[in-house]
This record gives sequence, structure tokens and C-alpha cells, in this order.
Amino acid sequence: MPEPAAGGAPAETLGRSERKHRAILEAAEEMFLAGGYLGTNMDELAARSQVSKQTVYKHFGSKEALFVELVTSMTDAAGDRVHVDVADPTEAADLPSFLEAYADRQLDIVMTPKLLQLRRLVIGEGTRFPELAEALYEHGPKRAIATLARMFERLAERSLLRVDDPTAAATEFNWLVMGEPVNRAMLLGDAAIPTATERAAQVRAAVRVFLAAYGAR
Amino acid sequence: MPEPAAGGAPAETLGRSERKHRAILEAAEEMFLAGGYLGTNMDELAARSQVSKQTVYKHFGSKEALFVELVTSMTDAAGDRVHVDVADPTEAADLPSFLEAYADRQLDIVMTPKLLQLRRLVIGEGTRFPELAEALYEHGPKRAIATLARMFERLAERSLLRVDDPTAAATEFNWLVMGEPVNRAMLLGDAAIPTATERAAQVRAAVRVFLAAYGAR
Repeated sequence: MPEPAAGGAPAETLGRSERKHRAILEAAEEMFLAGGYLGTNMDELAARSQVSKQTVYKHFGSKEALFVELVTSMTDAAGDRVHVDVADPTEAADLPSFLEAYADRQLDIVMTPKLLQLRRLVIGEGTRFPELAEALYEHGPKRAIATLARMFERLAERSLLRVDDPTAAATEFNWLVMGEPVNRAMLLGDAAIPTATERAAQVRAAVRVFLAAYGAR
Repeated sequence: MPEPAAGGAPAETLGRSERKHRAILEAAEEMFLAGGYLGTNMDELAARSQVSKQTVYKHFGSKEALFVELVTSMTDAAGDRVHVDVADPTEAADLPSFLEAYADRQLDIVMTPKLLQLRRLVIGEGTRFPELAEALYEHGPKRAIATLARMFERLAERSLLRVDDPTAAATEFNWLVMGEPVNRAMLLGDAAIPTATERAAQVRAAVRVFLAAYGAR
């Protein structure tokens, strides 16, 4: 969504600037994911975005800042799709299917070739470019766990869960659901992305363990 | 340990060959972990091992095979140190501290700068060199989970655990213990390696959740 006009700049100008911004980010996504951070050439990136190299730097400041922005926008967009506005359950009987649906959405969205490739890339470059990996951590797992913790807190207030430390519970839920599939995909590639049936089994088992520890009796 | 003499070769010859083998692997560990796979030059590696390049290829076949051997030997050695010969507990009351000690050893051994760097490197190179990542998967998490599954099977036979699917239970245990610390270290670097106190808290919480789901009633 375009930013609101600052200082009364004409909407048309903003629209064009926003279009350039997006074109640069789209080219960055394609090129960084295919060629890695060091393998991406900023001249080519400008050419592919159909803007001047000066425009790329005006919009993003530096190659590293552009990659941080890409990591941030990709992980935020994924997070937004997981944390859709679903009403919390009110009955204990609805809790398992509610948590399963949440975890299934999380797995489905995180286990996509693009996000997995971004993660592999950022981990591989983490020693040289710690800001990239930090951005992925902050906007990926940290944000996901914080949102989950707030949800568990609300469910505990309704006495549907017994949770002393919502962040610890959210962290455990997150890794019960995601640990094995993400690790497999990191090491074995996209062939290890679970099918819908495998995802459903993974999610059911994870929710069962979680509720054994945190479900209201 | 040197291989037993094959075909009556003199022990001294085998000893020298074994020493060269180790010197190459040690140089490989140092150079691959510091410079990455592509950044490691085989001429330099031979020089640092004080052998000819021909000897390196005679021992390991190729640069990639050498890296696979390094991944295998480093992860196997780590696994061997986790799965020490500790007698299984016989009383339910001893189970929590037994599992906590196991998980603490696992975290302590896996969360070392060298193994974490190997993992980052292999994930970053996974797309170009899938054999490296496969070797880490097979000798790392897959082997660890298989060993854990056999242990849970024995504990279930003694009625100390209620486990239908030992591999699923072992996978869940593994990621309850390792998911958050490994992910943080992958993205935030060695500064995120847990202290002994943090490790103890992580391990206690993980074992509590696991036993809520799998402990004998």
C-alpha cells in the first residue's frame, strides 16, 4: 500500500516512486534468491528493475540495506498471512482444531521454496552479514513467537490453557510444529517440503503434545 | 583409531597413512570453516597438511568428497559424545533427571562454535552441493533421533514411558530441546549459544512438556 502523501507531494509522483520501489524489491527477490548476496550485481539489478543505479541507492541506501528490506518485507508478509484475524475459541472442545488450523497455516506459509531459500541464504551469509540474519530472526521467528504468546495469554485468561510463561509455551509450540520440517528442508532441500497430508499429521501430533503439557484439565 | 592392517601391510606404513589422513582432515576443518567451501583452495590445503595435492586426492577422491568426510566425521564424533553409555533408569522417579542430563549433553555438544559454523556453511551451500547437507542430516539429526527413538522404546518396554511411535516422540523431544537454541545460533551467531544456566532451564522445560505427553501415569 502506498504511504500517505508527505508534505503535499502529488499522488502521481508518489505512485511512480512506489512502483519503482516495488520493481526494485521484486528484482532483488529474484536475483538474491537465485545468485546469493555476493553473486548479485547492483548494475544488473538496476537494469532489471528498469531504473538507474542512482535510483536504487536513493530508495534503499546500500546493497545490504536493500537485502535487509527484502528479508523484512518477505518475512513480515509471511507472518501477516499466518496471523489472520480468526476469533479465539471460547470452548475447550474447539481448542485442538483451532491450534491445528493455526499450526497448519504456519507450516504451509513458512515451508515455501522462496522463504526456505531466503533462510538458507541468510544463514549461509550470517557470519559475514549479521544484519541480514538478525532481520530474519526479528521479523520471522521472534515476531511469530510473540504473536503466539499473546494468543496463549488470552486463552489462559479464558482458562482454556494453563500457561505460566506464555513466551516459553509459544516457543515450544513453534518448534514442536516447525522444528523437524524446517530442519529437513534446510538440509534436504525443497523435496522435503511436507505434503498437506504430512503437514496434517505433523500438526496433530504437535498439538497433542502441547495440550498434554498446557491444556486445562 | 588406525584400521587393522589389510593384506599384511606393515603397521608403520599404515600409521603414516593414517597420520596424513588426519592432517588433511584437520587442515580441511580449519580452512572450510573459515573460508567456506568455494573459498577453500586445494593447493593451500595440501600445503597446510604438509602432503602433496596428489596425496589429498588419493585419500579423499575430490574436494567435495573431502568435505563430506569432514561433515561425517565431525557430526559422528559429536553424536558419539552425546550417546555415552549411561544405564537406562529403572524407576519412574529417575526419568526426569535422566532425560535432562541427556538433553543437556546434547545441547552442550551441538551448540559449539565449530559445529554451528559447519551447519551454517552446509545450509548455505545446500543448493549447490546437496551431498554436504545430506551428510550432515544423516549423521547429525537423523542419527541422533534414531538413537533417541531406541532409548524411548526401551523405556516404554519398562513402562516408564507411553510411546506408540518412538521416532515421532524422539523427533519431538529433539526439537523441544534444540529448536530454539539452534535457530537462534543459526541467525544470531555464537553470542546466542546458551550458558550452562540457560541450558539447564531450557532442558527442564523441554523434559516437562515431553513427560506430560509421554510419561507413564
